[in-house]
Amino acid sequence: MMKNKIKIALCQMDIDPDFNKNVSNAIDMINKAAQKGAKIVMLPEIFISPYDVRRFKKIAINDKDHLIKTFSELSLKKKMMIVAGSVVERSGRNLYNTSFIFEKGRLIGKYRKTHLFDVDIKGKITFQESSVFKPGNIAKTFNTSFGKIGVVICFDLRFPEMVRSLAKQGAKMIFAPAAFSHITGPLHWELIVRARAMDSQSFVFACSPALNKKYSYQAWGHSAIVDPYGVVVNMLGFKSGILCEEINLNLVEKVRKEIPIL
Amino acid sequence: MMKNKIKIALCQMDIDPDFNKNVSNAIDMINKAAQKGAKIVMLPEIFISPYDVRRFKKIAINDKDHLIKTFSELSLKKKMMIVAGSVVERSGRNLYNTSFIFEKGRLIGKYRKTHLFDVDIKGKITFQESSVFKPGNIAKTFNTSFGKIGVVICFDLRFPEMVRSLAKQGAKMIFAPAAFSHITGPLHWELIVRARAMDSQSFVFACSPALNKKYSYQAWGHSAIVDPYGVVVNMLGFKSGILCEEINLNLVEKVRKEIPIL
Repeated sequence: MMKNKIKIALCQMDIDPDFNKNVSNAIDMINKAAQKGAKIVMLPEIFISPYDVRRFKKIAINDKDHLIKTFSELSLKKKMMIVAGSVVERSGRNLYNTSFIFEKGRLIGKYRKTHLFDVDIKGKITFQESSVFKPGNIAKTFNTSFGKIGVVICFDLRFPEMVRSLAKQGAKMIFAPAAFSHITGPLHWELIVRARAMDSQSFVFACSPALNKKYSYQAWGHSAIVDPYGVVVNMLGFKSGILCEEINLNLVEKVRKEIPIL
Repeated sequence: MMKNKIKIALCQMDIDPDFNKNVSNAIDMINKAAQKGAKIVMLPEIFISPYDVRRFKKIAINDKDHLIKTFSELSLKKKMMIVAGSVVERSGRNLYNTSFIFEKGRLIGKYRKTHLFDVDIKGKITFQESSVFKPGNIAKTFNTSFGKIGVVICFDLRFPEMVRSLAKQGAKMIFAPAAFSHITGPLHWELIVRARAMDSQSFVFACSPALNKKYSYQAWGHSAIVDPYGVVVNMLGFKSGILCEEINLNLVEKVRKEIPIL
């Protein structure tokens, strides 16, 4: 029998320049989330490095990497599902922005970011993810002990069709590791996470790194849990921290019955 | 040469039980909008009647109706484009929720609402538009002297694919005659008009009737002009009035270049 009340934790990490320090920091926060009683825990987009395309090649891992084993074991030990934000994945000669998902000691799925972040706001922010990454395939859902879930990564959030497609495939929870910038964040972050929850009538969990003004790319923070009405359940500020809330999946069925748009 | 700076007026009408009174009220407001220098004027969804399916059959018109002639002539006389909210259109045995668009003395297009408002929020609001109306076809753009425009009606706003499709077809302005209720209005109105502008990177003009607590269905008002960044340019409250702003279509090209999502 599936439980409908679930405690979920989003880890808004301070990102370090050092890969290993980020890994140990992630493990610490996952342990803390477990202590809070969370059954699902998630990490931010590219949690193993500052967000900078020049660094990405050096920190790429493949799906046989030790990190995969570490998180697999952790999911068993802590009896939690782990949506491990995203990392730089190497597959052959290609790099992907990939989210790995773990449960019960296993890697149960991975999602490669489909819509790459190519933005050019003159004098404010220019970023070309497609200079480094290949795009993934269109999103599919993953079967978990909490039911079907969908994963999208950051810029994917700008494509409502994709998020609605995941909901139509049966997802009630959308996980969005993300790292909006300090330019697009104030403009669109809260609007977009609320809009995607409203459009897909799903819970949206959007987990960002904390703001760090030393880095060339400054993540906006404000990790958020949004209910299927598009109402913000809770949201962090700029600083690192764990956002932990109990949600009730029955709300998804309620709104989908009330306002049938899927 | 097309002008990029356009003054536009949204008429948030007080709706009367009497058809003819609503028509003369609409004409008055259009004249006032012309005095303000507006070159485009729009009316709310079903501006010729309180929003009540039991009334709709009695007030249905066809596209040979005198009202069509009146608005055609008015568009020529006042040198304005008129997006005439929506009316109940009869075609053969079918009724549609239809928006007629006028320019230079002619009916230049009509759009029939595609997604009908069937909502059931227990104890709060139940409405079944599909018991009366047939759905229209999927949206297409209309050519006007202001460039291509798109029209959607109220519940259509819940389908981001449709609004994005209009933008992909070249529309820079989306006109949304609407009548969210006092239940769904506070929950979703501002969020949805902002989200659709952000997703389609278009100006969104959403025009509602004023709130009237005497009616069974109470429109939320809050007619709004939203820019292609999803920022509210201006918004009315509950009461009747004309929302008149000058917009600059260059903003559409700017954001579409900065954040390429179409």
